[in-house]
Parts: sequence; structure tokens; C-alpha cells
Amino acid sequence: MADIKRLAVLGSTGSIGRQTLEIVRTLPDRFKIVGLAAGSNIALLQKQAKEFKPEFVYYHPGKTRLDTDCQFLPMEEMAAHPDVDTVVIATSGGSGLEPTLAAIRAGKSIALANKESLVAAGQIIMSEAKVNGAHIMPVDSEHSAIWQCLEGEQTPPTGIILTASGGPFRGYTAEQLANVTAEQALKHPSWQMGKKVTIDSATLMNKGLEVIEAHWLFNIPFDSIRVLIHPQSIIHSIVEFIDGSSKAQLGCPDMRLPIQYALTYPERRSNPELPRLNWDNINRFDFEQPDMDNFPCLRLAIEAGKKGGTFPAVLCAADEVAVELFLSNHIQFSGIAAIIQQVLEQHEPISIAQPTVKDINTADAWARDKTIRLALGDEPC
Amino acid sequence: MADIKRLAVLGSTGSIGRQTLEIVRTLPDRFKIVGLAAGSNIALLQKQAKEFKPEFVYYHPGKTRLDTDCQFLPMEEMAAHPDVDTVVIATSGGSGLEPTLAAIRAGKSIALANKESLVAAGQIIMSEAKVNGAHIMPVDSEHSAIWQCLEGEQTPPTGIILTASGGPFRGYTAEQLANVTAEQALKHPSWQMGKKVTIDSATLMNKGLEVIEAHWLFNIPFDSIRVLIHPQSIIHSIVEFIDGSSKAQLGCPDMRLPIQYALTYPERRSNPELPRLNWDNINRFDFEQPDMDNFPCLRLAIEAGKKGGTFPAVLCAADEVAVELFLSNHIQFSGIAAIIQQVLEQHEPISIAQPTVKDINTADAWARDKTIRLALGDEPC
Repeated sequence: MADIKRLAVLGSTGSIGRQTLEIVRTLPDRFKIVGLAAGSNIALLQKQAKEFKPEFVYYHPGKTRLDTDCQFLPMEEMAAHPDVDTVVIATSGGSGLEPTLAAIRAGKSIALANKESLVAAGQIIMSEAKVNGAHIMPVDSEHSAIWQCLEGEQTPPTGIILTASGGPFRGYTAEQLANVTAEQALKHPSWQMGKKVTIDSATLMNKGLEVIEAHWLFNIPFDSIRVLIHPQSIIHSIVEFIDGSSKAQLGCPDMRLPIQYALTYPERRSNPELPRLNWDNINRFDFEQPDMDNFPCLRLAIEAGKKGGTFPAVLCAADEVAVELFLSNHIQFSGIAAIIQQVLEQHEPISIAQPTVKDINTADAWARDKTIRLALGDEPC
Repeated sequence: MADIKRLAVLGSTGSIGRQTLEIVRTLPDRFKIVGLAAGSNIALLQKQAKEFKPEFVYYHPGKTRLDTDCQFLPMEEMAAHPDVDTVVIATSGGSGLEPTLAAIRAGKSIALANKESLVAAGQIIMSEAKVNGAHIMPVDSEHSAIWQCLEGEQTPPTGIILTASGGPFRGYTAEQLANVTAEQALKHPSWQMGKKVTIDSATLMNKGLEVIEAHWLFNIPFDSIRVLIHPQSIIHSIVEFIDGSSKAQLGCPDMRLPIQYALTYPERRSNPELPRLNWDNINRFDFEQPDMDNFPCLRLAIEAGKKGGTFPAVLCAADEVAVELFLSNHIQFSGIAAIIQQVLEQHEPISIAQPTVKDINTADAWARDKTIRLALGDEPC
């Protein structure tokens, strides 16, 4: 029998965190939950702590306290604790960076679902991982697909094709997009995900962030990364090789599949809970080019990625705030891209060559403040 | 610089043999042709010998003699010669078995394009390869695809999906099929291949042979191998894993790609001559189930594969003769399957458990004779 992997799940009450615990529940011989960290969903964390009996918990300190014997431990300490083998970073937004770096510096295996930390600080994360021998395993379905296709290859890839469902508004005109509601945007055609990433999928910002992620994870130039709309969401991404061959990973659109792959890697494990493709019912795959005019977030993200420095951090922070403002009906759908573009245009880069974590945090704070001001009219929008 | 691989190309004047030499021509730092063997196309062999200056040649002894200083060597001896590292088996039909076994017993790397030898004697070939530490590398595009998708995987596959273009008569009714000509059958929609394999593609026998090949190469039960029609011929096959993930290999339909992969393995090499997929122009992949009623060769092959013993050898031999009879206008297109079916029905298996090479050769000879008799009316057809 294989050794038991000891996991810390940061962001355990979110969509990826809950699905990670589902995998652990179905493969109990394989995993032990050592740490659970959540934000403000104390009720769910309480249930999770009761079921999985971790050594450590973390939650945002507030009025409610967890009724548990578990030790309260900040996420950075939990991520670096000797009792932990693999850290699942499933926190949302900018909160993933510090614990990711703590896990890296402790040489852990890291199942990384938080794309914002890699987008904002990809250079730091990848170089620290190299120095500390930490293994970063992507959990995003697209990057997991690329990782799976690269396994066993001795020659680096020459190109990556990130597939995208196109989201709920694929094919919409600018006029149609102007009037879409948060409710419509939250109905993703193929994936069940958290609110932030669902809205990012509707704007195609999610795909833009994934381009930057892929750039860092796989050391691929931006010009060798292509986005392709594939509405059926069965091909999760494609890797191109120097000899003209390509490889693709396919599967049902279910995040538990890439989560389990990262957790059981380098093995694959049978799991009757996971769906399988049924080729009796698959009769076509469609592909189309992304519409960068009506979905400018994709273009903005790629441009920010190419500029580098603190621009990707600004992109992430502005997007996080803009999505919240859209969900709370303060701005329109098309306002998300418009505001992010303005914030990026007004950003004075702090360090283009090699921003530090401090530079990134400074840029992040500036961008959040600027986005709110622009959106709520403290400044001309 | 990598070491130079010393190649013997058996069947050098056929379609795969010529394309193998094209690869060698474009990567001269990587390969040295040590041996060339052909059948009766002495004129082309003469040109090849002049260009590549092999140590050894072989051709069917006949009236014409090769004007060369190269040593004449039987294929079995050439395949096992110490000066040879990798043997490309690109002979057609049943003539590939003996040299394949000779190469295996000498522990060579074998790029195997001759599917009939593996179909007829898969059990012998794979067990001898294991004993002798010979590495068998498939050259068929589908099996190369599967091989590429399995590289680096630690867990064996649970299923294989062999894609098929469907050939020139995809969607034809029984009535339409009755009247097709050899000329029509030789016009394959996506692949440029030799005559035998092109007709086999039109009847779907080729895919049936590939099912048996996949069974032996990858140690997969027949019930876990599925055939899927994919007219665009871009996905070359798909591998399914225990966790619900699948991987596919994609590329332009060009045999030089799998040939080069086998030759340069485990590396991939840049080759400007090889075509690359252009995702600007790819907008859909179609998939449909194969029509086993109107293309009974596929069913006959799978049944023969499942029965085992000498049935696959009979299938191969009967098909080889039936295709020749069709090309020479002695039987109709639908007669190919009809005659093969009768030959299989009349076959008294020589050994079901573990046929020897002698058993296989006996069954092969019996089937050839029986096919001709049935077709030409010496026996009631």
C-alpha cells in the first residue's frame, strides 16, 4: 500500500477546498487531513473539522470561534509545518501568495488552485520553488491537462493551446453584453465553480489569467500560448511539440479530476465518484477563435502578462474588486473590463524587472483603491 | 550531439520505407542506413543504395540484379546483424514475421510498421520481445498515438479508442458499396498510403487489424478497445485512464510523423519538412460509431482477434489475397468481407492456446489457398 499523504487544505470551505475533501473522503487509505484553513464560513469549517479531525485549523479571526480541540495556526505556519507533506492552496484572490511562498520555502509539494498568486508573483514563486526543491502541481483543469501531456516528455513543448468554454456569453454582441446580469453571468454552461472564477469565465479574464499562469508554470513565451474556444469543454488543453505532434488531455468538466491527479500524482487512482467520458454520446467538438473585441479582459490580461513587473498584480487586484462591484450591482458587466483597463493605464510600474513581494503588495493595494475610486465615481471614470 | 543510430530498413521501396528514408535524409546527423531490403522494385532500390550507401542489401532474387558493391544479405540476417541498432520493419503482408523475430531475438530496437506480423503472431512477438529485451516501437499512427500518450504514465490504461477516418466510403449503403471500383477505393480522403492498406482502410479491415495490434502491443483486453470514426483524422487515438482522464495525440495525417517519433524516441526532433496543425483553420472534429453491418471486416477482425490461435493469421492471409483479387477485378468490393468470412468459418484452428510460427505459417498457407479457391469458383462460394 502506498504511503499516506498528509494534507493541509487552505481554503477548505470554498469550491475547490470542498471538492478536495470529497476526494480525500473517497480515498481514505491515501490521505490524512492535517490542516484546514478557511475564511469566514465558520459553520462549514466546524463540520469539516469534526469529520476530518485535523491537527491545525485557521479561520479569519472574528466574532465566531470554532468549537474544536484543533490548534489554531496561521496559514503560513500551517503550510510550512513538518507534519504536512502536500499543501492544497485553494484560497481565492490575493490571499494565496504568502502561504504559497511559506510552503515553497519549506520544500513542500504544492497543489496550486489559486491562480492569482501565480499571476501576480509567478517569477518569485517559480524561482523560489526551483531553489527550494518544492514541486508545484497545477490544479486548474487546463494546466493539469498540460502537465499530464508533458509527463514523460524529454523535449520541452513549443506551444500551448489553452481551451476555453467561452462562458455563458459566447457569441454575444457588445449590445447584448451591455445588459447581462450577475445572475446570467453566474450560470456557467459547463463548469461548477466559485463566484469569482465564474464571472472571470464570463469575461474571459479567467482565460487571460490562465495564459499568464501557463507562461510561468511551463516556462513558455506568451507568443507560444494560444487560446481556443471549445464550447464542449472536453479537451482541457493541448500541448504542441517540436516534431509537429500534439497531445491533449480530455475528460468530463469536473474539477475533482485535476484535484485528484495532483493529490495522487505520479499515480492515478480509481475513483468511482469521478465521471468518465461516454463516447456513445460524443459526436462533435467545436473550436473557434476568441472574440478579443467583445471580451477585452483576455487581451488586457495577455498585455499585462507581457508587460510583466507589477502589471499582472494590478490586473488581478483590479479584477477582484471589479467582479465584486459587478456582483453587488455597482457596475455593469462591460464595466469590469473598462475599469480594469483604466487602472492598468494609470499604473506606474514599481519594478519591471523583478518586483519583490512588497512591490506586489503595494501595487495590489494601489489597484484595489484605484478600482473602487474609479467605479464609485470619486474620480472621473 | 546524440549518437548516430544505425538503421536497417526492410521494405525500403514501399510507402513507409520511402518515408523512412525521407526522415533520414532530413536528419543526417542522427541516422546511418546500414541495410536496405526491398521486394521487386529493383530500380528504386538501386537509387536508394546509391544515395545511402548501405553495407547490406536484400531483394527478391530474380532476373534483375542490383549493380552495387553492397553485400547481399537475407532479411533475417540483416535484422540481427551487430552493425544494426534499429530495424524498421516496413515490409507488407505476411513477409514481416521472420525478420521481426530475428530482430527481436537479437535484442534490437524495432520500429514496426508491418501490422500483419503482429496480428498473426502477436503472442509470440510480445513474449519473445520481453525475453530478449527488444523494444518494439509502433509506427502505425494510431499505435504511435497511444504510445505517445502512455509515455511517463505509471498506471496502465483502462481503455483505448482507436480513431478511424472511415475511409472513402464512410456513410455508404450496402447498395452503394456493391458497385464501388478499385479506383474509388484507392482514393483515401486523408492518408497517403500503399495500395493494400488503402483498400484495408476502405473496408475497415485496417482498423480491425489495428484493434488486434493494440491488444498485443499494449496488453489491453479486446472489450476495452473501441473504434471511433473521426473523419478529420487529426486525433490519431485516445487512451483512457483509471481516474477518468483521457489523453489523445493529434497531428496532421502524415506517416512521417509517427515514423520520425519511433526513430528519434525518446527525443523529439525538429523537422521543417513535417507539417504542423494550424488551429486557424480547424473548427470542428466529428465522431461517429463505425458501421459494422456495412463494413463487416471490422467485426470479422475483432472476432478473429478474440478467438485467437491461428484465426488472426487466417484473417490476415485471406485479406491479403482478397484485396489482390479485388484490385485485379476478380471480386467485388463486398466480396472481400464475404470471402474472408467464409475462410474464417471453414478454418479448423491448429492451436488455440499458443500457436507456433509453424502453426501460423501452415494456417497462412491454408487460408491463401482457400481464399483463391473460393473466389475463383473452384469451390462453391
